[in-house]
Amino acid sequence: MIETFLMNQVQVGTLAASKAARVVHAARGRQGVDFGLRRMHGADAGLKEPRAFHIAGVDATSSTVAGQIYGIPVVGTMAHSFIQAHESELEAFRRFVRSFPDAILLVDTFDTLKGVEHVIQLAKELGAEFRVAGVRLDSGDMASLSKQARQLLDAADLSRVKIFASGSLDEYAIEKLLNAGSPIDGFGVGAHMATSSDAPFLDTAYKLTEYAGSPRIKLSHDKSTLPGRKQIFRESQDGKFQRDILGLAEENLEGRPLLGKVMEGGRRTGPPDSLEVCRARCKADIHGLPENLLDLTRAHSPYEVDLSGELTRMNAEIVKKLR
Amino acid sequence: MIETFLMNQVQVGTLAASKAARVVHAARGRQGVDFGLRRMHGADAGLKEPRAFHIAGVDATSSTVAGQIYGIPVVGTMAHSFIQAHESELEAFRRFVRSFPDAILLVDTFDTLKGVEHVIQLAKELGAEFRVAGVRLDSGDMASLSKQARQLLDAADLSRVKIFASGSLDEYAIEKLLNAGSPIDGFGVGAHMATSSDAPFLDTAYKLTEYAGSPRIKLSHDKSTLPGRKQIFRESQDGKFQRDILGLAEENLEGRPLLGKVMEGGRRTGPPDSLEVCRARCKADIHGLPENLLDLTRAHSPYEVDLSGELTRMNAEIVKKLR
Repeated sequence: MIETFLMNQVQVGTLAASKAARVVHAARGRQGVDFGLRRMHGADAGLKEPRAFHIAGVDATSSTVAGQIYGIPVVGTMAHSFIQAHESELEAFRRFVRSFPDAILLVDTFDTLKGVEHVIQLAKELGAEFRVAGVRLDSGDMASLSKQARQLLDAADLSRVKIFASGSLDEYAIEKLLNAGSPIDGFGVGAHMATSSDAPFLDTAYKLTEYAGSPRIKLSHDKSTLPGRKQIFRESQDGKFQRDILGLAEENLEGRPLLGKVMEGGRRTGPPDSLEVCRARCKADIHGLPENLLDLTRAHSPYEVDLSGELTRMNAEIVKKLR
Repeated sequence: MIETFLMNQVQVGTLAASKAARVVHAARGRQGVDFGLRRMHGADAGLKEPRAFHIAGVDATSSTVAGQIYGIPVVGTMAHSFIQAHESELEAFRRFVRSFPDAILLVDTFDTLKGVEHVIQLAKELGAEFRVAGVRLDSGDMASLSKQARQLLDAADLSRVKIFASGSLDEYAIEKLLNAGSPIDGFGVGAHMATSSDAPFLDTAYKLTEYAGSPRIKLSHDKSTLPGRKQIFRESQDGKFQRDILGLAEENLEGRPLLGKVMEGGRRTGPPDSLEVCRARCKADIHGLPENLLDLTRAHSPYEVDLSGELTRMNAEIVKKLR
């Protein structure tokens, strides 16, 4: 049961972080905010995914609870329901900035460009008091709307008001918007990142590789496993990863060993790393990926993974013995 | 935040149950067991999805914790690691049945048909003491292997030993196996049901439809909403659903009203239904679906949903007022 639960936790850690790293890469330095709580699978995912996203480079979360528990920056905008609760959109904006003067105002409840005009109207009314940080587009043709919104805002001397986009975004949609020259400064990403929708699970498994001091394998059709305690040795050149060698733990091959001991006898061997340390390590690792692995559109980019001589020898020996 | 969390819980309730209902339908009355904990997104999903699956007709779960908390039958088989921890598969089977005499033995660790022969060998050794309930196939060509396994078992006078299949199954794979005449008595379904992998989220939203006594709408491009408090009236004929009419709560149309009040002033209006009552209701509702909606291979089966005259009129009036 314990090993099954550890694999369950990998889904809200490694899986969530992997998807988020792709979204962050596609956003090319623009702000990325997690909007996904309502589509995540339950409360545990709702807490741990925002943390995994943040480690992978997502700037902030709209989940106030996750922000509070893990110390993740919280960025929210406003809900359609707030606007719907008022007699007019402009009146809703007026009321909202009384409580949140530096808000990102949601402009698509009735008509996106009219919404932008209401923000401009509010700027005229408030004068020097106007501190609205941005507008959020949440529907329609965002490439076209973001350009028109930018023009309207710039013409009203509101270049400092940023444009934020949300609504069914994933790494591919973000890349397409930026390739189209959309002047978008930040992205709110929900369902697709929250569920890693195009790859919704990691095919993790738990198999025995050593027992009672001797190596073990499994030969099942298409699902065989390699024997022995492992280490992964990663070779790099000029700061870019070249290949990984999967070897035995006692081998001493070239390259950086990736696996380290964090638990012994059921206890951590040291204190956990801070979120900042995790973020820096993740950033460095992504930076080390070969360029072709960072291309979102290439479905099967090759990365060389070889077995060490020792591991190959041990495996052949055991397979022979079992057959 | 509360409404966002309610939508989050819908993902481990309605989404999970919807996927499970498809799997149960495909299994045509054969045993269905949830094997998905390791692929579910976190601990909360790990508890609530097995419950939702069971309501939707899944017989049991391999999650002992969920079984204990919610009173769901638990069915487990055995892990590859147990077999790997022994010097031979047959020895592992001998040891396992000492603790679990009516086990389902996993036969694919090294070679599926040799595994079946080891079960037959065990039956000879144990004689009248042999109580093994089944064998589990977990890899390879299951249509072919299940037939060969059935023949081997029947020839050894072990017709009572059932065949259980697992490994990357979903409703389509199960349908294909049964269409091929595979003599499989039960299915363990993991990752695909656990994450609803082909539709990993429900596109739920929270919008205001009434505020301060007057109806509200949202006109956003492609995402508009209808005003007012709703009721759904379902018309049936000969026990089969014919169409739904979406109307206003105060209307009194033909058909069974689907929405009922369960909370008032933040409190439940009555005790929760038992799991058995939920299961029976779900079964009756699925039984009421028109035949074409029960066909897994039809991508877009039509089901008629109409708006009532009152709702149409109210919507037109408000849209006109806002534009």
